[in-house]
Amino acid sequence: MTHWTLAARAAKMNPSVIREILKVTEKPGIISLAGGLPSPKTFPVDAFASACAAVLTHDGAAALQYAASEGYAPLRAAIAAHLPWDVDPAQVLITTGSQQGLDLVAKVLIDEGSRVLVETPTYLGALQAFTPMQPQVVGVASDDEGVDIDDLTAQAGSGASKARFLYVLPNFQNPTGRTMSEARRAALSAKAAELGIPLIEDNPYGDLWFDSPPAAPLTARNPEGCIYLGSFSKVLAPGLRLGYIVAPQAVYPKLLQAKQAADLHTPGFNQRMVAEVLQGDFLARHVPTIRALYKQQRDAMLVALEREMAGLGVHWNSPQGGMFLWLRLPEGLDATALLAEAVQRNVAYVPGAAFYAEHADPRTLRLSFVTASSEQINTGIAALAATVRAARGG
Amino acid sequence: MTHWTLAARAAKMNPSVIREILKVTEKPGIISLAGGLPSPKTFPVDAFASACAAVLTHDGAAALQYAASEGYAPLRAAIAAHLPWDVDPAQVLITTGSQQGLDLVAKVLIDEGSRVLVETPTYLGALQAFTPMQPQVVGVASDDEGVDIDDLTAQAGSGASKARFLYVLPNFQNPTGRTMSEARRAALSAKAAELGIPLIEDNPYGDLWFDSPPAAPLTARNPEGCIYLGSFSKVLAPGLRLGYIVAPQAVYPKLLQAKQAADLHTPGFNQRMVAEVLQGDFLARHVPTIRALYKQQRDAMLVALEREMAGLGVHWNSPQGGMFLWLRLPEGLDATALLAEAVQRNVAYVPGAAFYAEHADPRTLRLSFVTASSEQINTGIAALAATVRAARGG
Repeated sequence: MTHWTLAARAAKMNPSVIREILKVTEKPGIISLAGGLPSPKTFPVDAFASACAAVLTHDGAAALQYAASEGYAPLRAAIAAHLPWDVDPAQVLITTGSQQGLDLVAKVLIDEGSRVLVETPTYLGALQAFTPMQPQVVGVASDDEGVDIDDLTAQAGSGASKARFLYVLPNFQNPTGRTMSEARRAALSAKAAELGIPLIEDNPYGDLWFDSPPAAPLTARNPEGCIYLGSFSKVLAPGLRLGYIVAPQAVYPKLLQAKQAADLHTPGFNQRMVAEVLQGDFLARHVPTIRALYKQQRDAMLVALEREMAGLGVHWNSPQGGMFLWLRLPEGLDATALLAEAVQRNVAYVPGAAFYAEHADPRTLRLSFVTASSEQINTGIAALAATVRAARGG
Repeated sequence: MTHWTLAARAAKMNPSVIREILKVTEKPGIISLAGGLPSPKTFPVDAFASACAAVLTHDGAAALQYAASEGYAPLRAAIAAHLPWDVDPAQVLITTGSQQGLDLVAKVLIDEGSRVLVETPTYLGALQAFTPMQPQVVGVASDDEGVDIDDLTAQAGSGASKARFLYVLPNFQNPTGRTMSEARRAALSAKAAELGIPLIEDNPYGDLWFDSPPAAPLTARNPEGCIYLGSFSKVLAPGLRLGYIVAPQAVYPKLLQAKQAADLHTPGFNQRMVAEVLQGDFLARHVPTIRALYKQQRDAMLVALEREMAGLGVHWNSPQGGMFLWLRLPEGLDATALLAEAVQRNVAYVPGAAFYAEHADPRTLRLSFVTASSEQINTGIAALAATVRAARGG
């Protein structure tokens, strides 16, 4: 009789709360404001079709062969050229989605018990990527402008328990939609350097600004002290699984070795497709259409919230880009407990509790404004308001 | 000043010896018998082009969207149907190349210090995938028919140091090209079940048989006691990075959670392309053309070896499929030391020492017969013989 002994880390892994919720929301008739799925209207299918044909016609054998773990050189060069600071293409590592970037960072920087700092709340996928390496994850207090600098100092740790890094998502954060202000970025960059704490800067949404671009990345301010994670999932399409890391020489070789061991390399075919699509400054024409669509849908959600939530004691923010809005229920309500009733009324969201490393605020929840249409957003927010009203006994 | 503290596991990671050698062999004029690159002649470029167009036309939005971590259901069903034992598609997990399968297995089954058994020699990529989880890797003695059953019993360990699994590559092994006999499979399957040790069965080359198919997989004999790793890299193309795991319920949920954390899911676009190509029993027509080509090139290598190595005290095997042949130099020669001289003579190989978990045999080396043409094989083997002759002082 075979005896399977699981690694200790396996006991700490859990199914994604979001993916479990998404299964519920596949029930017909449910309006899902839960998932973080880009609108398929934004996928440049025709450009991909042309790119596929071109790659297979002109470069098929190379596109279908094993390739370098670093990634396809022209794509690495295009990424370096696109980023708003001086990036050497040799510091770019192509990853299988930016989720893999988080996995590689965890493998290279986290020992069992290592102190790791995150925002409050933070991206759930990052917590999932870090967990298998068994860190002690500590939430740094955060407000609408980002990480609290004093609390960063307080939580930095020292000696063997000094934080290995702070993970931050400064632009239109998942889950809150908030953006770190210029003043906060400057203060964070200076304080992290003073404390000697590396920053892991995750920027999947930075290009999806509505009125004006966000302030310069933290990595641009101190490239030797930061690892930057980027993605094509939100500006082209997630189904190709194409992301990248920009890392300083102090860690790049180890990230590369971890990448080799993880999947040898990201599909060369996909890398060439994207490199082909990027030619002729495609993103400069394409991304504004995504911004316009998402801004319109954010507006629809804000209008619906103002209309439906009046007098219910519900609070929410007004994200300046990205895909998500953060909402807080009135005192006494619990977003996790309320979800089943919301689904009864045919609307779904993600309870905020999933996004906290510790000390979750049970009243919070995340709403996506990009997957559902404006009409669905109207109906969904009305159903959510009805759920809250019923729960308050009104 | 930022201080990067690397995880202890990072110190154990090393650049792939093979990838370093491949860089050397990119020098013009070098005949590389080193890399394990499938012949690009075997890539079905036209079938992929049709599949791309069909997927983007009929299913573009879904192909480009986020998707389930388990993989694309029709592809999972096609894999289950193709395998020669009764496989439930629910037990199939699509991976980003079978290398990722090894990474997931390591995460789920290896704690720091866990005893892990491998063949002697074994696949280098498996050693690289296991290393970050810091196991104690132990080589089980192996002969031309596969793992030595008595040594497996001797090395099994007990209590907390009982082996977590035995990793085996029974068909046309990388690096040796050897195939486990039916008798050995039966004995190994029985002994592993008796000892309670899970088997990780890696089968990237099994379809590439030359005269007759290999014996049934170990997993077919005891599905609850084995994890099976498969790949489309050798029967379609490696550049799409498509592999799969078949795992029993005792470990599938944890492998799935590790997969979610690692890269969310394998590119849905690639999964649909391959599912499309597989329709109409494509592999039944395509794979025989690969077999015929590789058999012809193996024959060319065997003929060249007989001709060039006569009297040099060199020994080699005659693989019945796959991509590799295993060669042993005469006493006193070291394949690692000899490589620089071989490259001087414009031929490259992989020293066998890279493939041993412990107690490397320095006289061994791996030759690939699939990437170079028959003419190049002739020239390359002549150059290798000249290198050996010179080293022997003859």
